[in-house]
Amino acid sequence: MTAGRLPTGAPAQEGPTALLERVRGLIRDVPDFPTPGVVFKDIAPLLGDGEAFAGLIGLLADRYRGRVDVVAGIEARGFVLGAPLAVALGVGFVPVRKAGKLPGETVAASYDLEYGTASIEVQPDAFHRASRVALVDDVLATGGTAAAAAGLVARAGGEVVELAVLMELTFLGGRSRLGDLPVHVVLGD
Amino acid sequence: MTAGRLPTGAPAQEGPTALLERVRGLIRDVPDFPTPGVVFKDIAPLLGDGEAFAGLIGLLADRYRGRVDVVAGIEARGFVLGAPLAVALGVGFVPVRKAGKLPGETVAASYDLEYGTASIEVQPDAFHRASRVALVDDVLATGGTAAAAAGLVARAGGEVVELAVLMELTFLGGRSRLGDLPVHVVLGD
Repeated sequence: MTAGRLPTGAPAQEGPTALLERVRGLIRDVPDFPTPGVVFKDIAPLLGDGEAFAGLIGLLADRYRGRVDVVAGIEARGFVLGAPLAVALGVGFVPVRKAGKLPGETVAASYDLEYGTASIEVQPDAFHRASRVALVDDVLATGGTAAAAAGLVARAGGEVVELAVLMELTFLGGRSRLGDLPVHVVLGD
Repeated sequence: MTAGRLPTGAPAQEGPTALLERVRGLIRDVPDFPTPGVVFKDIAPLLGDGEAFAGLIGLLADRYRGRVDVVAGIEARGFVLGAPLAVALGVGFVPVRKAGKLPGETVAASYDLEYGTASIEVQPDAFHRASRVALVDDVLATGGTAAAAAGLVARAGGEVVELAVLMELTFLGGRSRLGDLPVHVVLGD
């Protein structure tokens, strides 16, 4: 079996600090998207840089190796970061999906978004009892999505060890909605 | 830098044939979802098995190592398979997104779904000129999504080397809509 073989595409060779600066430089601010007054954090340039993307996942894997049994990602950008993290760790991945996407019985939660409202769901058998979970998304904004997702994980039997996000929009005060949930911001100050 | 380090979670140790049988056994048929008469292929049990998931990504990485410059994944289950593949290869990842999700200028295509219609988009600068692209999704059904996505990649400057899917619903005849696009079905007969 060759799963886990080193990628032939060279990962970033710089140290963590230089890598994080490179990652930061690959996130594009797009004003007034998806609604006027909102600045969208576009991670497409980061994803498109294979070295930086693999380096970022490597840093996250270093942080959670041995500490979590499963990675949960919030649809859809949390899938792009969370699924590679799960594979790098060799653990399972649980998608926290938008309403109506998961078949069978689900556990659901509704919440207010930065712009609008939404519902998310997980399958009730998604977590083994007392699984340690890394919950992953790209941006912590108002915290509504993350708080709802953390609640779903708990209701489905998992324990969120930490919420990991690439960026935090601190001016939106999202942490105040997360109670005592530990948060890791990759591009924190 | 530790990107690309071997995962500590042990990947599946069996050979490719046994691994593929294991993967096949982890896909759950859910009748009448999302609409009556449709059998949904639920990959959640596969994703939840860290060894099988990492093993599958390893097999795909073996297939495309050195053959592609970028991986494109179709929202949203194509993100879950495509993003880890990109990281395993050390190449960039391009999300093919549902309409309205990508900021800035986009290239769009509408198409008929197995159930309903939809539009997908990519950013026009997503691919460097003549990038070799592996296009990834979970299921090839009617081929509408895949054909639209392949067209978008071409319009954005990429060349689809192969469409890689986990499963093909052959009775829906999706390949007839794909012209001469090569298709790799991981769980093909």
